[in-house]
Amino acid sequence: MNIAAITDQLISAGHLLHRRGWVPASGGNFSARLAPNQLLMTSSGCHKGELSASDFLVVDDQGQPGQGETRRASAETLLHCAIYRVDPTAAAVLHTHSVPATVLSRALEAGVMLRDYELLKILDGISTHEVSVEIPIFDNDQNMTRLSTVIEDAMHQGRGRHGFLIRGHGLYAWGSSVAEARYRVEALEFLFDCEWQSQLGEARQ
Amino acid sequence: MNIAAITDQLISAGHLLHRRGWVPASGGNFSARLAPNQLLMTSSGCHKGELSASDFLVVDDQGQPGQGETRRASAETLLHCAIYRVDPTAAAVLHTHSVPATVLSRALEAGVMLRDYELLKILDGISTHEVSVEIPIFDNDQNMTRLSTVIEDAMHQGRGRHGFLIRGHGLYAWGSSVAEARYRVEALEFLFDCEWQSQLGEARQ
Amino acid sequence: MNIAAITDQLISAGHLLHRRGWVPASGGNFSARLAPNQLLMTSSGCHKGELSASDFLVVDDQGQPGQGETRRASAETLLHCAIYRVDPTAAAVLHTHSVPATVLSRALEAGVMLRDYELLKILDGISTHEVSVEIPIFDNDQNMTRLSTVIEDAMHQGRGRHGFLIRGHGLYAWGSSVAEARYRVEALEFLFDCEWQSQLGEARQ
Amino acid sequence: MNIAAITDQLISAGHLLHRRGWVPASGGNFSARLAPNQLLMTSSGCHKGELSASDFLVVDDQGQPGQGETRRASAETLLHCAIYRVDPTAAAVLHTHSVPATVLSRALEAGVMLRDYELLKILDGISTHEVSVEIPIFDNDQNMTRLSTVIEDAMHQGRGRHGFLIRGHGLYAWGSSVAEARYRVEALEFLFDCEWQSQLGEARQ
Repeated sequence: MNIAAITDQLISAGHLLHRRGWVPASGGNFSARLAPNQLLMTSSGCHKGELSASDFLVVDDQGQPGQGETRRASAETLLHCAIYRVDPTAAAVLHTHSVPATVLSRALEAGVMLRDYELLKILDGISTHEVSVEIPIFDNDQNMTRLSTVIEDAMHQGRGRHGFLIRGHGLYAWGSSVAEARYRVEALEFLFDCEWQSQLGEARQ
Repeated sequence: MNIAAITDQLISAGHLLHRRGWVPASGGNFSARLAPNQLLMTSSGCHKGELSASDFLVVDDQGQPGQGETRRASAETLLHCAIYRVDPTAAAVLHTHSVPATVLSRALEAGVMLRDYELLKILDGISTHEVSVEIPIFDNDQNMTRLSTVIEDAMHQGRGRHGFLIRGHGLYAWGSSVAEARYRVEALEFLFDCEWQSQLGEARQ
Repeated sequence: MNIAAITDQLISAGHLLHRRGWVPASGGNFSARLAPNQLLMTSSGCHKGELSASDFLVVDDQGQPGQGETRRASAETLLHCAIYRVDPTAAAVLHTHSVPATVLSRALEAGVMLRDYELLKILDGISTHEVSVEIPIFDNDQNMTRLSTVIEDAMHQGRGRHGFLIRGHGLYAWGSSVAEARYRVEALEFLFDCEWQSQLGEARQ
Repeated sequence: MNIAAITDQLISAGHLLHRRGWVPASGGNFSARLAPNQLLMTSSGCHKGELSASDFLVVDDQGQPGQGETRRASAETLLHCAIYRVDPTAAAVLHTHSVPATVLSRALEAGVMLRDYELLKILDGISTHEVSVEIPIFDNDQNMTRLSTVIEDAMHQGRGRHGFLIRGHGLYAWGSSVAEARYRVEALEFLFDCEWQSQLGEARQ
């Protein structure tokens, strides 16, 4: 697929995710892998519900833009690079900010345990609801080199292969296409909403 | 009505239900009865908010596609077949995944009891709010032959005639047209939301 | 204003109110006063988010359609007639079903007390937040003659002049134009949502 | 930028904010600074989700319209004037009414404390989540001269530089462009929603 087609898919994903309230203000960032050492990234500070082609730039697998590029890639480009390094099947990465993900990530310690939900079958390699999936929560850090190292190490140890949360910040999910990445965001954000509602409901017991 | 018109109605229903957040990712599946032994089904894995005509295929009343069909019908086609067998008036079946239905189906045991709601009058044969309707909750099962048998047996015993929930999974509702099926989904999802909010509210007593 | 223009305004109101989730399925009904003894009413059973001109019919001030009219006016036409009789300034009546209004109307006894909200200034004759407005809750009744008499009597005694709730059912609000009626629905539904959230929040004290 | 372009930006902002449910009925008001002593204001009583160019008028820095202007500026024009006086970088002010902001402003006393949220970085001069930002809550007052003086004094003392709430009423936020003001509204309304959900969640401990 060419850059224009992938860009269109990311723009459409942004419209949908903003309508859901999951990319408020200039929150969130999106990317796609164009070639082994080439990524398409949203630029820093753009509104994900109102993306246009000029909001995207090409960076290498270390997150560096080409010579002459005047726009800045999203500050969190290094996290995208880490995901593409660890998961060779990842072709698109979507980072969202939802209210349920944000409050859950602050209310829980190490991760969100998801069990017995049919929608878990959207995740890679899962074919039954009778499973426990942990979406780990990493502490937020403005030092992206340090944060991406922490997350890359955790992923190498098998944590976060279905996505991860950053505390008080939001979700990272990905897939082998923009569509698959978006399905996983939709599924995980839905499940975080279920988990948060269930926590509220437990107050009555 | 011809296939094209019914397909258009199911596509429109998908747009509406996705805007409500009730068919996240590739969750949910839709069908219509074209003839006594012929169903139109959504194919496996498609996004219900972005359906096109190519996402539908024709299967027989056992859920088998015709010779040469390369697409797979939704994994839950057998549940649709069971509903059409038990209820001869059913012309369309819609299966949705909402947050309130999902959390209610995990918080309650046997079913959701709906009483004294005006919207109950949307259901078949109900003309007053002064009624108790149980929407039964069946345990989820990845074995569709077994799950469809359990549900078909329960329906023959009079349970679930207004729709049913599968635990941690979602709602099945139907009607004598796509429009009627959709009205019932809208009404039941609304009532599940009311019931969940009421459960949260009871925490304070 | 002619019938076509008023019809268009009611159709637009239906789109907006359905997007908010306040007229699920065929719930709700809308009307406008065309002349002292002539009302435009939504027909029974139509979907308020997908109205077309053919979903409206003209009835007299007792809710009776003209000779030869084959469509049925909404079952709740008598409630609209009662409102127009009691409030001579009413030019449009909108009846909605929202989740917060439904659960509040079941959780509270006699009415919803609204105090110290800026949005109360949308209501007729109110120019400060420092006021208490009661939106009364009437028990639901399928006998529309009886229910409309109860409500008309209460309104003559000064209750429900800013709108009223029917228990487990929804809101009636009105104004001197379709726009004003819609503003009042938007304001009251917003305030019911605030009241319900506040009730949930009180659980923690 | 000329008036027409700024008007279009405010109209678009109104559409977006209304879809989110943050400017119900005729609630809210918007403005932009055209020149040091010239503001563009929404007129009194218009619907912010359905703005057209005729809903805007030009006022001076005391909120007074020019001679011959027959429309009235929003009642809260003086609050906009105060913000433009205190913050010379403010080019647009947006005032919204959301359910979470309204209930939080009634449940809390002096202000909403926001800590450890990534989205705080949308605010002016904040580059880390490791910060505490207070959004002060001022008591509502129908006397706009008095209320604007209270708020202007507080802002001169350093409170409310990132926005403020009026109790039972809503949020004021601003920026150096319409886009920036809108980003701040989106971010703050998101964070109020998180704070309210967290308060509900604390009920269970």
